[in-house]
Amino acid sequence: MSHNSFGHLFRFTTWGESHGPAIGAVVDGCPPGLELNEGLIQPFLDARRPGQSKFTTQRQEPDAVRILSGVFEGRTTGTPISLMIENVDQRSKDYSEVAQAYRPGHADYAYDAKYGLRDYRGGGRSSARETASRVAAGAVARLVLPEVTIRAWVAEIGGDAIDPANFDAAEIARNPFFCPDAKAAARWEKLVDDARLAGSSLGAVVACEATGVPAGWGAPLYGKLDADLAAAMMGINAVKGVEIGDGFAAARLSGETNADPMRPGATGPEFLANHAGGIAGGISTGQPVAVRLAFKPTSSILTPVETIDRAGAATQIRTKGRHDPCVGIRGVPVVEAMMALVLADHKLRHKAQCG
Amino acid sequence: MSHNSFGHLFRFTTWGESHGPAIGAVVDGCPPGLELNEGLIQPFLDARRPGQSKFTTQRQEPDAVRILSGVFEGRTTGTPISLMIENVDQRSKDYSEVAQAYRPGHADYAYDAKYGLRDYRGGGRSSARETASRVAAGAVARLVLPEVTIRAWVAEIGGDAIDPANFDAAEIARNPFFCPDAKAAARWEKLVDDARLAGSSLGAVVACEATGVPAGWGAPLYGKLDADLAAAMMGINAVKGVEIGDGFAAARLSGETNADPMRPGATGPEFLANHAGGIAGGISTGQPVAVRLAFKPTSSILTPVETIDRAGAATQIRTKGRHDPCVGIRGVPVVEAMMALVLADHKLRHKAQCG
Amino acid sequence: MSHNSFGHLFRFTTWGESHGPAIGAVVDGCPPGLELNEGLIQPFLDARRPGQSKFTTQRQEPDAVRILSGVFEGRTTGTPISLMIENVDQRSKDYSEVAQAYRPGHADYAYDAKYGLRDYRGGGRSSARETASRVAAGAVARLVLPEVTIRAWVAEIGGDAIDPANFDAAEIARNPFFCPDAKAAARWEKLVDDARLAGSSLGAVVACEATGVPAGWGAPLYGKLDADLAAAMMGINAVKGVEIGDGFAAARLSGETNADPMRPGATGPEFLANHAGGIAGGISTGQPVAVRLAFKPTSSILTPVETIDRAGAATQIRTKGRHDPCVGIRGVPVVEAMMALVLADHKLRHKAQCG
Amino acid sequence: MSHNSFGHLFRFTTWGESHGPAIGAVVDGCPPGLELNEGLIQPFLDARRPGQSKFTTQRQEPDAVRILSGVFEGRTTGTPISLMIENVDQRSKDYSEVAQAYRPGHADYAYDAKYGLRDYRGGGRSSARETASRVAAGAVARLVLPEVTIRAWVAEIGGDAIDPANFDAAEIARNPFFCPDAKAAARWEKLVDDARLAGSSLGAVVACEATGVPAGWGAPLYGKLDADLAAAMMGINAVKGVEIGDGFAAARLSGETNADPMRPGATGPEFLANHAGGIAGGISTGQPVAVRLAFKPTSSILTPVETIDRAGAATQIRTKGRHDPCVGIRGVPVVEAMMALVLADHKLRHKAQCG
Repeated sequence: MSHNSFGHLFRFTTWGESHGPAIGAVVDGCPPGLELNEGLIQPFLDARRPGQSKFTTQRQEPDAVRILSGVFEGRTTGTPISLMIENVDQRSKDYSEVAQAYRPGHADYAYDAKYGLRDYRGGGRSSARETASRVAAGAVARLVLPEVTIRAWVAEIGGDAIDPANFDAAEIARNPFFCPDAKAAARWEKLVDDARLAGSSLGAVVACEATGVPAGWGAPLYGKLDADLAAAMMGINAVKGVEIGDGFAAARLSGETNADPMRPGATGPEFLANHAGGIAGGISTGQPVAVRLAFKPTSSILTPVETIDRAGAATQIRTKGRHDPCVGIRGVPVVEAMMALVLADHKLRHKAQCG
Repeated sequence: MSHNSFGHLFRFTTWGESHGPAIGAVVDGCPPGLELNEGLIQPFLDARRPGQSKFTTQRQEPDAVRILSGVFEGRTTGTPISLMIENVDQRSKDYSEVAQAYRPGHADYAYDAKYGLRDYRGGGRSSARETASRVAAGAVARLVLPEVTIRAWVAEIGGDAIDPANFDAAEIARNPFFCPDAKAAARWEKLVDDARLAGSSLGAVVACEATGVPAGWGAPLYGKLDADLAAAMMGINAVKGVEIGDGFAAARLSGETNADPMRPGATGPEFLANHAGGIAGGISTGQPVAVRLAFKPTSSILTPVETIDRAGAATQIRTKGRHDPCVGIRGVPVVEAMMALVLADHKLRHKAQCG
Repeated sequence: MSHNSFGHLFRFTTWGESHGPAIGAVVDGCPPGLELNEGLIQPFLDARRPGQSKFTTQRQEPDAVRILSGVFEGRTTGTPISLMIENVDQRSKDYSEVAQAYRPGHADYAYDAKYGLRDYRGGGRSSARETASRVAAGAVARLVLPEVTIRAWVAEIGGDAIDPANFDAAEIARNPFFCPDAKAAARWEKLVDDARLAGSSLGAVVACEATGVPAGWGAPLYGKLDADLAAAMMGINAVKGVEIGDGFAAARLSGETNADPMRPGATGPEFLANHAGGIAGGISTGQPVAVRLAFKPTSSILTPVETIDRAGAATQIRTKGRHDPCVGIRGVPVVEAMMALVLADHKLRHKAQCG
Repeated sequence: MSHNSFGHLFRFTTWGESHGPAIGAVVDGCPPGLELNEGLIQPFLDARRPGQSKFTTQRQEPDAVRILSGVFEGRTTGTPISLMIENVDQRSKDYSEVAQAYRPGHADYAYDAKYGLRDYRGGGRSSARETASRVAAGAVARLVLPEVTIRAWVAEIGGDAIDPANFDAAEIARNPFFCPDAKAAARWEKLVDDARLAGSSLGAVVACEATGVPAGWGAPLYGKLDADLAAAMMGINAVKGVEIGDGFAAARLSGETNADPMRPGATGPEFLANHAGGIAGGISTGQPVAVRLAFKPTSSILTPVETIDRAGAATQIRTKGRHDPCVGIRGVPVVEAMMALVLADHKLRHKAQCG
């Protein structure tokens, strides 16, 4: 069972609520002998950290990670790695409204329907704050994958997409949008700021690519690499769609145009295209593993929305707290982390059966 | 681990290859006391069965299911239900070409890279024939879900989409395309037949909706209902994309237009929209659970494609066997089965923790 | 979840009832490329097969195994291996009594309490017939463990134990009791035959040893090799106790006498004793892995026993069918199979994380 | 996979080493709405706490538990419950000897063989200190089981057993041995103190009984209640044997003497004996669930023992630190915790399938 755990051999379990004392992850199954310290995790948390530009929520969290177990003299021991991040900026605000009324688009109603009660402060367990735990765990997963390079970026905000011709990987770190197209980034400044000022929100498409994955990772039929990636990505807050390779566009191609022909290459087959996104029959082909995700617009908006309260009576709610105008932006480090976590698990699984 | 199993409490494991003596599924965790016999499974297999029109592969398989265990005096006993389907029409053909060269788009190369050998006859384990096992298991899952109605249909073939205004559920069973729009079905006759005659293939989009799912099924954060649906659907052969609710379209909406406002209804909240596809925070909201999938065009085409052989040398291959010109069509009963299997599992999981 | 599955990476799922058409196992996670055919499994089934002497049940079952999947051209492909054994000798007898009254010591009452119904014919799912599936799966597990030799024997019947001084491994196959002590085997002839003739039954202690297991298999803390062995062995029908190494005798030793001192040896440490049974801290030490199991006497006896019927009324029952006077005897091949299955799983698990 | 997790629906994962900053457990799958606070956990930790008499290790640990998540306004929310216990008394001692030489009977050599490195301070992950996490998790499990009463006791130390005729449950809390026989407790004072003063150690047998378990918990065949109990108990540090009901004694009984006859009772069947320990066919019968465990003597003794160092050279080692002369004594609260954890999991599993 995996209510709050993910992975099989490289496995992590997260815990914690938005406004509790801390959040954290326990990483189990990590190979021993890998160099690990807080300094190797912190940069990834810093990339996800809120409050770094006006385009993300203004909650101020240092997100300083502590390693509580599983590391000895700077190396992993093979035992569980407990990672903890204290919650610092749980601003004392009045939650009486959200305690009583369900915010449409949020998990409020569904949680109450399931559990009969919920920690409503900042969204509780359903807060995107939980993704910091994933990013921390993902940083550990990367250590298992020295041969793999993982890179994610925002490909589209509010329907305004990047121009692939302008793609420059170096650009991703230079703007607050993780945008590889400098021109698009310039446009998004106004787009996102307008939404922010209007108390509105925007959706986004995030793309992620892992290069260096050898052919052979994955498993038929209910342990397919693409199926596990789909679960990993769809499980990120606000994600409503996942594509591998050409995704929905492939449904509009003919068999001839969708083929990925092969010819002999220097170090194995050379593929003439990658419509498949690096995965065939659930198993990696050696091409870049390519995924795209749709993030819905943040559900927290200033415009009042019709809703009901806990007693079932009609009411309205609008969200006044600190929020991301486009939650997809901060999703980029989370997507990279989930990619690393899936690949690390499958690397070990492959090694177990076929290594 | 779940190389070949799916689900947690309602769990099934499939086995079998395209050209072995049989294929099958073992369903574990089914509640006891449910009426079950072959007659309750067979109609779903018949819907998926090949060779029923010129628009699907001409392989002739009766797909007669046998229940080998777990049922006593017509009722489930709570012990594993073993379902077996014999392979009948494994036409003896010459597989020497596919044994030696990798068919692009198929799992051939990836399987060899992983396992070092493969059963190349008809695709072996990676054949869509395996989906018959899922359909059989799905028929059992439906028994666990009397309150739920599951309906899937083809929404688009080769880029030609249905018109939602023409949607007529009764139409789905009346044409060989599982198409709810009679006009689109008429157009597809020529579209698919042209592809078939040209030895080409087409992609498709399949939609599925489950009504009657109560609020509260699902689980945070790595057991989300949408994440499990994504894995289930992405794990179907040829699927390259999965959307929940509005999916990628949601990424182009503003927070205001994407909201699903609620008001008091007769038997709980009434939602004014269902952009979320019936799931919020990984938990069902009581609205219809709505999923869309992209099927790539069948990779088997008559046009020769550049490839390599097992020795790594350049060659060409074209697929001469019996194949579906649009594999998405026969995906419809499989999608329904996977929906039932995910929901049955989550129903039991919810009952365990919160029931 | 593992209602009917066992293992994590090398994993098997069994299905089938005593009087259904067949029983079987699906083995998942087997490494590819291993030579496998029915002839490599059958000898182990033959060793477990009933009706071979007057000291076991007279049910006649050829127990011929069929491999339905996962093997191609004589080698495992890495995909699920489906093994099926048809039930042949389901003698048509009158089950009306056992259908109505609960046999004490059997699972009858517990199954009804759990499921509300049960397949009462021959014990249904709780029949020791299921162990044939384990033996078949265990034969596959042995292929994963060429470096390991597994040997089990009956160490005690009805309180009459072998003399360790008489231990002769070659003797095990020479008598119908899997007894390594020729003198004890001679005594047991009368002991077991007397029980048989009296319609009574006897308990037994079975020992099992695996040599060749390298140091390092196992895992802390809930994947301990000894914990998994305990589960595997306690899960065999009629087993009520499991010991690792000295087991309960260790509770009567002092720390000094229980120590297993080490000194340098030719190919690693040489241990001066093996009180620990080859496992320390849940991980193998390189010494023989040694387990002992207590089998209770067969619950089926001719003497009437006080019981209740399904309606809760008082009645008596005595078991008239074909039964083993000492079920522990035929447990020997099952114990060996479970040892192989646990070790194969842990070998792969170790390889995944530390290999 | 379950390297460091246990349970399926009610599931916990532990982390932490003896001399790290803290240890802890994450409890997942707990039903919502249960009253929970630190005060409901602490008494169980206090019972296990070291340094409370001269018969246990003198390490001083307050073992104060903190709840970091999963509880809101004093009630469980259904989300993961993170429990943390800080390590306080990690006495700064010289570990150079144990860093270099393997202590026989401890996990030192096996850990190094597996992982290539180990946290040798106080045994690291293999320290019995980890059992505090289990006790904390077990306290949560008890909340799920209001109908069940769990009671464990020491039944034997160093071969000196209690007299069942003297059994007085109230006595268990009155002596430092968890001994229900006042006379035995008096004898053990000298027995254990002599061992302590001699730097020696003693083994013990611990018994545990759970009353109030209804008929029907458990599952065939690899989710048997007794198999899961065996794994849970064998996984406790220093345990080398587990019995259900009569255990090994049952192997010496005839079928007639081992029968547990039933007759109609006031609220269901009344059993005339409980040789089976409350479990038949892997499923509870409604009788008390009875388990017995063998704890080996503490491996840490003052007498030098022959061993090897990390380089493989011959040496000797004797253990000078603070240790329990009879580790079985402090095992009692751990055994109760594991019983609660297994039962809570099976209660939910039963509810899911058959509730």
